[in-house]
Amino acid sequence: MRTQVAIIGAGPSGLLLGQLLHKAGIDAVILERHTGEYVLGRIRAGVLEQVCIDLMDEAGVGERMHREGLLHGGFDMLFNGERHRVDMHRLTGGKQVMVYGQTELTRDLMEARSAAGLTTVYEAMNVRIHDFDTSRPRVTYEKDGVSHELHCDFIAGCDGFHGVCRASVPRHAIREYEKVYPFGWLGLLSDTPPVHHELIYVNSDRGFALCSQRSKTRSRYYLQVPLTDKVDHWSDEAFWQELRLRLDEEANDKLVTGPSIEKSIAPLRSFVTEPLRFGRLFLAGDAGHIVPPTGAKGLNLAATDVKYLCNGLIEYYRDKSEAGIDRYSALALKRIWRAERFSWWFTQLMHRFPDDGPIVAKFQQAELDYLMHSEAGLRTIAENYVGLPLDFGQRA
Amino acid sequence: MRTQVAIIGAGPSGLLLGQLLHKAGIDAVILERHTGEYVLGRIRAGVLEQVCIDLMDEAGVGERMHREGLLHGGFDMLFNGERHRVDMHRLTGGKQVMVYGQTELTRDLMEARSAAGLTTVYEAMNVRIHDFDTSRPRVTYEKDGVSHELHCDFIAGCDGFHGVCRASVPRHAIREYEKVYPFGWLGLLSDTPPVHHELIYVNSDRGFALCSQRSKTRSRYYLQVPLTDKVDHWSDEAFWQELRLRLDEEANDKLVTGPSIEKSIAPLRSFVTEPLRFGRLFLAGDAGHIVPPTGAKGLNLAATDVKYLCNGLIEYYRDKSEAGIDRYSALALKRIWRAERFSWWFTQLMHRFPDDGPIVAKFQQAELDYLMHSEAGLRTIAENYVGLPLDFGQRA
Repeated sequence: MRTQVAIIGAGPSGLLLGQLLHKAGIDAVILERHTGEYVLGRIRAGVLEQVCIDLMDEAGVGERMHREGLLHGGFDMLFNGERHRVDMHRLTGGKQVMVYGQTELTRDLMEARSAAGLTTVYEAMNVRIHDFDTSRPRVTYEKDGVSHELHCDFIAGCDGFHGVCRASVPRHAIREYEKVYPFGWLGLLSDTPPVHHELIYVNSDRGFALCSQRSKTRSRYYLQVPLTDKVDHWSDEAFWQELRLRLDEEANDKLVTGPSIEKSIAPLRSFVTEPLRFGRLFLAGDAGHIVPPTGAKGLNLAATDVKYLCNGLIEYYRDKSEAGIDRYSALALKRIWRAERFSWWFTQLMHRFPDDGPIVAKFQQAELDYLMHSEAGLRTIAENYVGLPLDFGQRA
Repeated sequence: MRTQVAIIGAGPSGLLLGQLLHKAGIDAVILERHTGEYVLGRIRAGVLEQVCIDLMDEAGVGERMHREGLLHGGFDMLFNGERHRVDMHRLTGGKQVMVYGQTELTRDLMEARSAAGLTTVYEAMNVRIHDFDTSRPRVTYEKDGVSHELHCDFIAGCDGFHGVCRASVPRHAIREYEKVYPFGWLGLLSDTPPVHHELIYVNSDRGFALCSQRSKTRSRYYLQVPLTDKVDHWSDEAFWQELRLRLDEEANDKLVTGPSIEKSIAPLRSFVTEPLRFGRLFLAGDAGHIVPPTGAKGLNLAATDVKYLCNGLIEYYRDKSEAGIDRYSALALKRIWRAERFSWWFTQLMHRFPDDGPIVAKFQQAELDYLMHSEAGLRTIAENYVGLPLDFGQRA
C-alpha cells in the first residue's frame, strides 16, 4: 500500500490533518491502534479557540459545531470567597471561545472522513515507523493478525504522548522538557445543567476546582486531588460534597448534582519536544507536547500544529518547495511555548502545591487580586485564554 | 523622659516618620543602636517611586533629591541576548521613578532632623519595649552605660528585620510568612559612569544581573550568586568578568570598570508579618516585611507604611479618633502584599533557580517574550514597577 502522508493516530490531530489534506487533494491513510469507539470514549477538552473553530470550518466539518457549540465571551474566577468575571469579549476586542466537547469534534471529523470514503485503519497493531531519515519512509503494522506495509512520502505523528512516533526518534536527535505536577484532576461528567452559563475557575484553600460544561445539559466538573487518590475511592456523593466546599454560596445554590456518566483522575504535565521534525517525520499535538488542562490549550495547540504542517505539505506538493516543512517545527514551537507558559502560569496561580508554604497561597491571592483589579492584568489573562492568532509565529 | 511617639530605629523609615510627625506638631524621640555613620554606610536601594518622592517633599527634605536625583522613564530587559525597553512613562500615562541612593535620602532626613533640633539617641544599647498592650508603653535603653526610660503614647517599630520590636510581640499574636531564595545578590559599587542611562535587568543562562546606578558617576551592579559564595573570594576583576558574560555586546562595549568602593553579598527573602499593630506598637518598613530587591520596592514600601501610620497618629492627636490607627495594619498590608507579589514574581522571572529543570528556563524565556510583545503584558510590569498610588488600599 502506498500513500502520500501516513498519519499515525486517529484522534482529533490526525483526523483534522487527514481532512485538511483531503481538501487540498493530498492523499493520506490514518492508522489507529484503538477502535473508533475507544477514541470517542476518551473524555478530553471542550473549549475551542477561534482559530480551532476556523479550522473546523476550513475542514468542512463545522456545521454541527456551530449549531450545538456554545459561544462564551467570558469566564468567572472565584478566590477568597469572591467571584470576578473575566470579560474576554470586551478585553480582546470581540474574541470568544466555544464550548464543544472534543468527543463531538472527533465524531464530526470521523463521520466526514467516512463519508468521503477515506481510509482509516482502526486496530492497527504493532505500528512501527521506518526510514523517516530517508526520502522513502515506511510504516509497518498488523491488522487481524496480518502484516502490512505502508509506503509514503511523509509520516505525521499524531499518536499522542505515549505513541510510537516520538519514541522512534533517536535520543540524540531530540530534546524533551518536562514538568510533572504534584497533583491530579479528578473529573466528573454528568447529565445535569451546568451550575453557571460560563466556566468558573476556583482557587480555594481546599485546592483548585473547575466548573466546566459540554452543553446546556451536560456538565463537567474537576477537583484538584492528591496523586495518591484512586478514582474508586471517590463516590459521586463524595465528589459533590467536596465540590460544594470549594464553591461560593451562589454556585452552591444553583448546583444540580446527579449520577456521574464518567469519572477519572488525570495527572498534570507540561512537556515539550524539540524539534518537531525529524527528516520525513513530523510530530503534532500531544505526540510533541502536553499542557496541563488549566488553560484549555491542548486541543487548540494540536489544531494549529496540524494547520502549520498541512500548509507545509501543501507547499511541498503544489509548489515543489520544502520551505514550509522546513519552517514547521520552529513556527509551531513558538506558539506552543507561549501556550505552555500560559498553562503553567495559570496552573501555578490556581492550585495548592503541597510543598509550598503559606506565603505562596498569599502570593496567589495577591496576584489574583491584582489581576482582577487591573485592566492590563485582566487583558493578559483574556488575550492568552482566547489564544494567539494563527500567524503569530510569523509576526512575532 | 517622655514623648508622644517613641521611634525605634533611625533608618529611612524612622527618620521619615520623625520628620512627618514633626511637621504635624507631634513629638517623637528616635532611638538607634548604631552610630549615624554606620547607618549611612549601609548600601541599599536607590529607586524611588513617585509616592516616595512626594513624601520626601511633604517632609520638607526633597530639595537635594530633586537637584541630584535622576528621573527614569523606563528600563531595559535583556534576555536571550536581546534588549527590550519597558517604556514606563508611556505605559503608565506619564509616571516615572527617581534614582537617588538610600544613603543620600537618609542623609537628607538626618540633616533636617538635626537642623530642627529633634532628638535622636544614637548608640542606644539594650533597647527594650514594654507595656505596649496598655495605654502607657515604655522603652528602656542604655546610653554610655547609663540606663534610661522613655515614656510614650505609642511605639513605632522602624528597627528592621532583626530589630527588637517585632521580636517583642508574643508569638501567639503574630503570623509570619516567609520565603528564602536559594541564591544571593553580589553587589558592587564603583565610581564609574553607568553602562546605560537607565537600568538593565538581565536574565541570562549564567543567572540574573542588574546594571543599576546611584548617579551619573556612580554605578551599582549586581550578580546572582550561590548562597555559598563568600564576598572575599570575588575580586573586582572576577566580578567584572562575570558581569561581562551576562551582558550583551552593546553593554560590553560601553561598560566602564573600576575599583569597587563597596562589595557585599545580600540574601534574598520574602517576608510579611500580620498584623502590623499590637496595641500601642506599630511595625513599619523592614521590621514588618522584606521583599527581594528585584522590584526595588523595599524603601518605597517603608515610606508608604510610614505615611499611613503618620496619618493615623495625626488623626489620633488632632481628632481624638482611633479610626486611623485602627486602619493602619490592614491598609498597609494591602499595599505590601501587592508589592510582595510583584517582587516575588519578578524575582522568579529573572533568576535561575538551582532546583528548577530546563523547562523553567524555557518558561521564563516564553514569559519574557510574551510580556515584551504584548501591550497588556508590558503594562503589567510598568504599572507595578512605578508603584501603586497612596490611596490604593482605600480604593481597591
